[in-house]
Amino acid sequence: MSTQTISPGILDHDLTKASVDSILMDFLESRGSSGDSRMTRIVKLLEDFMVGGKRIRPVLTVMGWQAAGGETVPAAVLRVAASLEMFHAFALIHDDIMDDSDTRRGRPTIHRMLAGKRGDDRDERFGLGAAVLVGDLAFTWSDQLLHTAGLTPAQSAAVLPLVTEMRTEVMLGQYLDLQATGELTDDVDATLTVNRYKTAKYTVERPLHIGAALAGADAATLTACTAFALPLGEAFQLRDDLLGVYGDVRDTGKSRLDDLRAGKNTTLVALALRTADAAQRARLHTLIGDPALDETGAEEVRALFASTGARDIVERMIDDRYRRALEALETAPFTADAVTALKHLAVTATRRNS
Amino acid sequence: MSTQTISPGILDHDLTKASVDSILMDFLESRGSSGDSRMTRIVKLLEDFMVGGKRIRPVLTVMGWQAAGGETVPAAVLRVAASLEMFHAFALIHDDIMDDSDTRRGRPTIHRMLAGKRGDDRDERFGLGAAVLVGDLAFTWSDQLLHTAGLTPAQSAAVLPLVTEMRTEVMLGQYLDLQATGELTDDVDATLTVNRYKTAKYTVERPLHIGAALAGADAATLTACTAFALPLGEAFQLRDDLLGVYGDVRDTGKSRLDDLRAGKNTTLVALALRTADAAQRARLHTLIGDPALDETGAEEVRALFASTGARDIVERMIDDRYRRALEALETAPFTADAVTALKHLAVTATRRNS
Repeated sequence: MSTQTISPGILDHDLTKASVDSILMDFLESRGSSGDSRMTRIVKLLEDFMVGGKRIRPVLTVMGWQAAGGETVPAAVLRVAASLEMFHAFALIHDDIMDDSDTRRGRPTIHRMLAGKRGDDRDERFGLGAAVLVGDLAFTWSDQLLHTAGLTPAQSAAVLPLVTEMRTEVMLGQYLDLQATGELTDDVDATLTVNRYKTAKYTVERPLHIGAALAGADAATLTACTAFALPLGEAFQLRDDLLGVYGDVRDTGKSRLDDLRAGKNTTLVALALRTADAAQRARLHTLIGDPALDETGAEEVRALFASTGARDIVERMIDDRYRRALEALETAPFTADAVTALKHLAVTATRRNS
Repeated sequence: MSTQTISPGILDHDLTKASVDSILMDFLESRGSSGDSRMTRIVKLLEDFMVGGKRIRPVLTVMGWQAAGGETVPAAVLRVAASLEMFHAFALIHDDIMDDSDTRRGRPTIHRMLAGKRGDDRDERFGLGAAVLVGDLAFTWSDQLLHTAGLTPAQSAAVLPLVTEMRTEVMLGQYLDLQATGELTDDVDATLTVNRYKTAKYTVERPLHIGAALAGADAATLTACTAFALPLGEAFQLRDDLLGVYGDVRDTGKSRLDDLRAGKNTTLVALALRTADAAQRARLHTLIGDPALDETGAEEVRALFASTGARDIVERMIDDRYRRALEALETAPFTADAVTALKHLAVTATRRNS
């Protein structure tokens, strides 16, 4: 186990990221050296997959720790943070299977990588099954990182129920998302519910809770985390929806045709359908969800998002939620350093281009 | 949490099964009453799926507890046993996806059930993705059952590493199995390696270890568990391979065409290929792995398993391993009651018809 610790007060989180990366790589190194060549290959795949992630959940775990008054960040907290990142690798690998995505972080997805080059039916089935398994291993190992973090009994008792709820919520969110995929909806509330489960709670609220609980946070502190996290998390996802359509693949590592081709029911799409006239709506239905959609078709969709006003509404929703998150910080019983860091995070999460 | 306990000395395990079932159903009941109708549906699916399992891992957990000198079986041990059964539901749901199986325990598999009745591409993809998620939830909840078992710190420290290794081993075994599927092998050793990971260790050795570790077993007791479990587990899987081809669907709940159609590389198949002459080998290659194989074709395969002697060899391998498992019990430092129970188990595991 790593004994590295981090001093408090850092704002750019580079040290958190580096520490978490080093825990993850040491851990995978030890799992890969079992002597079984198949295991070595799986571990290598996971290592490559995990390079280049934003590490937002580990950073938020450390921020939660600091918000609740935790000072020098102990190795145990960093190891829990690393465990959330390993869990996230699991979630992404399975999401990519469900969404049938080709690329992630600028590289082929795990199921594509494992399917090999021939692309026949048997290879496809192997890629799919083996990717399910690589995801399952990442889940198993995220748990191992957690169990070997060296938590006190009080920390375990506070954190493990939060981890269970975090996992259950993201899976329910993904289930709702999957149910909606393939049939476009103009139900804006439904898209915001998926957003709340898959992103606001999973990506922001629960990591903050887990970090705060490790520092012994009381109920008022956890409630304040929620008041900040839910609007910010929603804003984060709305920004993601925009980046999925307008982002640059060189920044996002993700084709900006994927979401449109998959017919992903984002809030952006639901708003466009709701405000469109009959002719516009028909074009949106034709273009979104077409697996063969090309860049010309995507440009037409983008023009419709502009002319229906949907894009502007999403930008306003992001602004509104950003402001609510900042307001929540004003009354939160957090340390001053943590408030500064969370304000900074709110800007980067909502203004980012990757 | 249930506070039900079990008195020692039972041989038929009906009480273990009933107690574990009641823990599982209470647990799912509480997860299903969250008020979200989607969650209620998922929980109902899992409940139905879990009915009719043999509960062999929970039974072995309790036997491990007794073997290491544990007396009255406390609620915590039963809850750990239930957690292994919930993990097994996860493993089966994902295995069925990877093997593209249509039925399990006499009912449609989860991905078939979720795919709905139309059977078009979109439904198939939803069924697959949603089944991956239902499996993931079962994994999450197996962990919740474990965390809420009320283990002492010493029990947690002894058991959690064994749980991690059990999970990792079964996933590696499934990976090897998947790699071999679709291309028939006459490599008997390779099929036995998969058998060891997927069954001998996962189904027999690790549950015994976990139960024994809960009772504070020393290294010698764990080693004795292994000496009994590995041969017995191999015999159990070899019996399973035979039942996959010769079993009655009314007993096994599983079509006896599935394994042959999927081209499953069992030890039985590898032995047949190894001892077959050129003409027989060609027929085996034509028939096994043919997704359209019918009962007439399956009868021809069964005749080839007889004429090559493969079926007889597998029966002898089962006998040999059965005897080695019994020999291991002679020197094991187990309680007399446990030895009697494990002998009884060895008979039912190798002579069963379901």
